[in-house]
Amino acid sequence: MMVCMNSPAFSPAAALAGQATPGGVPDAGVNAADGAVVPEPGPELLRRAVAVRRSATALGQCGDQQRQAAVLAMAEALEAGQAEILAANQADLADAVAGGLAPSLVARLKLDAAKLAGAIEGVRQVAALPDPLGRRQLHTELDQGLVLERVTVPLGVLGVIFEARPDAVMQIASLAIRSGNGALLKGGREAQRSCAAIHAALRQGLTGTGVDPAVLELLTSRQESLAMLRLDGLVDLIIPRGSNALVRFIQDNTRIPVLGHADGVCHLYVDRQVDLSQALRIALDAKTQYPAACNAIETLLVHRAVAPAFLALAVPAFAAAGVDLRGDAEAMALGVPSAARDDDWRAEYSDLILAVRLVDDLDQALEHIRLHGSRHTEAICTTDPTAADRFLAAVDSAGVFLNCSTRFADGFRYGFGAEVGISTQTLPPRGPVGLEGLVTYRYRLRGDGHIAADYVSGARRFSHCPLPL
Amino acid sequence: MMVCMNSPAFSPAAALAGQATPGGVPDAGVNAADGAVVPEPGPELLRRAVAVRRSATALGQCGDQQRQAAVLAMAEALEAGQAEILAANQADLADAVAGGLAPSLVARLKLDAAKLAGAIEGVRQVAALPDPLGRRQLHTELDQGLVLERVTVPLGVLGVIFEARPDAVMQIASLAIRSGNGALLKGGREAQRSCAAIHAALRQGLTGTGVDPAVLELLTSRQESLAMLRLDGLVDLIIPRGSNALVRFIQDNTRIPVLGHADGVCHLYVDRQVDLSQALRIALDAKTQYPAACNAIETLLVHRAVAPAFLALAVPAFAAAGVDLRGDAEAMALGVPSAARDDDWRAEYSDLILAVRLVDDLDQALEHIRLHGSRHTEAICTTDPTAADRFLAAVDSAGVFLNCSTRFADGFRYGFGAEVGISTQTLPPRGPVGLEGLVTYRYRLRGDGHIAADYVSGARRFSHCPLPL
Repeated sequence: MMVCMNSPAFSPAAALAGQATPGGVPDAGVNAADGAVVPEPGPELLRRAVAVRRSATALGQCGDQQRQAAVLAMAEALEAGQAEILAANQADLADAVAGGLAPSLVARLKLDAAKLAGAIEGVRQVAALPDPLGRRQLHTELDQGLVLERVTVPLGVLGVIFEARPDAVMQIASLAIRSGNGALLKGGREAQRSCAAIHAALRQGLTGTGVDPAVLELLTSRQESLAMLRLDGLVDLIIPRGSNALVRFIQDNTRIPVLGHADGVCHLYVDRQVDLSQALRIALDAKTQYPAACNAIETLLVHRAVAPAFLALAVPAFAAAGVDLRGDAEAMALGVPSAARDDDWRAEYSDLILAVRLVDDLDQALEHIRLHGSRHTEAICTTDPTAADRFLAAVDSAGVFLNCSTRFADGFRYGFGAEVGISTQTLPPRGPVGLEGLVTYRYRLRGDGHIAADYVSGARRFSHCPLPL
Repeated sequence: MMVCMNSPAFSPAAALAGQATPGGVPDAGVNAADGAVVPEPGPELLRRAVAVRRSATALGQCGDQQRQAAVLAMAEALEAGQAEILAANQADLADAVAGGLAPSLVARLKLDAAKLAGAIEGVRQVAALPDPLGRRQLHTELDQGLVLERVTVPLGVLGVIFEARPDAVMQIASLAIRSGNGALLKGGREAQRSCAAIHAALRQGLTGTGVDPAVLELLTSRQESLAMLRLDGLVDLIIPRGSNALVRFIQDNTRIPVLGHADGVCHLYVDRQVDLSQALRIALDAKTQYPAACNAIETLLVHRAVAPAFLALAVPAFAAAGVDLRGDAEAMALGVPSAARDDDWRAEYSDLILAVRLVDDLDQALEHIRLHGSRHTEAICTTDPTAADRFLAAVDSAGVFLNCSTRFADGFRYGFGAEVGISTQTLPPRGPVGLEGLVTYRYRLRGDGHIAADYVSGARRFSHCPLPL
């Protein structure tokens, strides 16, 4: 499961450099926070990017078993290189602690034997996932002897920018190879030695398999990771694993498609006609089970008619769970202890804080979500089938849930086996993105001397006859 | 069929303003060509964009028949408003001619009774296309009583920027409504009155149907169309129908996804083992049948072994067709009359010009395409199945063709009924984009009190059991 961290004190250019800001400065003026300029790619970066692209083209033509074997070989090499990886991580950790890195970032940076074993097990699981390539999505006879098919193929080369977490390198690298893609990887500066050791093991693993180790490249300098944003034509998708501000900075500075989400402001609406104790159970889970996750709720909308009864249960239950409730005037009149301000309705707390608002009806709840939501995941608790259907049809988020927790919005829980991240973009891939998000398709047309002029003149006509997939 | 025009004398900001440049200036410095700055959206634009979004949300919940009826009503209203539309177009034409607009642009601007009738027939055909919405793509029982589905839904709101052509307004508006999307439309300034008359008819047609006419909005000022690029959250996809430079300018100035293609540098490779007369027929069609189209070839690669025989036929045939061949030294030695310079290998001529290069083998052809291609469409002529398979697997363009003309790379010819355009992006939608490109998907999860904590604790386990689609 990917947890979408949002560090409020963020400098995008520093993050691109892999330099987490322990103290940090306010997030205003992202583009120019520290005057970061996206430089032209230098010859060395171009050389390496071209090498990755070339190897990726070969990788894309490897069969299912070759790619599966390559990922398993990566897992074995990680096991063999365990001592080096853990030692490198120890060195990174010592520097980070000495440098005063925030404890939460130190925790993310840390890679002990158990965490490494878990990550290696994850790599093996990725190897076992069904092949996302070569699936025929469309098959049409355009005319006699002229047959069109659309098949899934790799994207080509991924550009991945991480903040501190070294384990993400293993996860993304295995997903990339499984789906036939090369990758340029840029880890956080704090994790520099850890990433280098992991990268060395991964390439060592690929040596001797059908996959050229050059297909995985590690970028180490800030200038390189900034310049990567200009490699359109060589890099097909940028995957930023970091804060909202990092994603926005990247979106504003590249023509390459960016897979990422900006905000996770999820809502739970408790309808008039509802199973109160079930709704409370869901609300508590959606807020407290892991409040730092992007699929945790930030706002609770309660139908006016049910609010007295629901809040009588919910206010003490949330208090017992350590949740700071912030309500509108009416919610406060029903026991919510603190007042919500205007900006609470758009806040992604990522913490044990929950905004509470009373609404007149379902329409007002929908309007609130339309105005303040981030199109991530919203849920309704109701026993009224009409209200359920309307909510499921009207909310245009990536996930719309009925009578269950928003915390299920996750690639593993959806059954995808592994995920690249969660996208709040409207276009596919959207929501939790698995291997499927790392492939595209290609049209193949096979003819026997067919030319367009014959169809323009009317000498021949298209049949457009569907063929079996 | 969409023809991807490339006007060499382009000012993106002028095009956004709908102001085609009759004389024009060189295309250098696109971003700052005339110092265009993307302004903050004003209150009036925001008000209208919010109204479109709100109506689009309602439209997205209309059923297949309602949307079909709405598109048919649009066609009827266009017929009823024919006199007004033609008169408005006459007025636009008179001004354009008086203002010295280039003849090719005047031709695109012109809407006579026959062209209008054809466009209205196109609107009816869009109504008849199968519904792209509500298709279930995934259906999984995550656990007993917890069922996930993924269904296709509209994108929301399209932002469409045209150059001169008023008929495109009818085509895109009908595609938008059929797929449940609202649209902000910005036509060329030369077509201002034509677009206004068409827009009025379209809204008139929607009046009395189940679709709010406010779902189609026409922008008229340059400032509005520039500011639209900042409406992320209100606009879900920008569709620029214009030149490469327009597409690039837009990509560089918005976070909203852009559907468009930058270049169409298509290749035909004539392999060693080949049916010479078939290859020549295909080469002639791919270059000359409509040279202004983006799917016409710009470069011909010929295997050295077959070059003497092939060029002996091809040089006179292309000369007879009025094609200016530009070759490398070896091609010139075999009769190609002009010399190709380095920039010929990347040129999108959109004209009766063709670059010709000899290659040692298939690998060198693949390398040439990798270096110089635009990933649009490439074709091979060969009777060798091994070479065919290698080419079809190794070329990473949106279309890869065997023994047929690249001119088939087109939504109508692929059987999509209508197309929004052709995308050379790597991510889907890619290649010719039909109605399917105007939809996305949403995950719906229905439970009965399911919470994540139970799966974290191990009290419950996911079944991930596939259900019928």
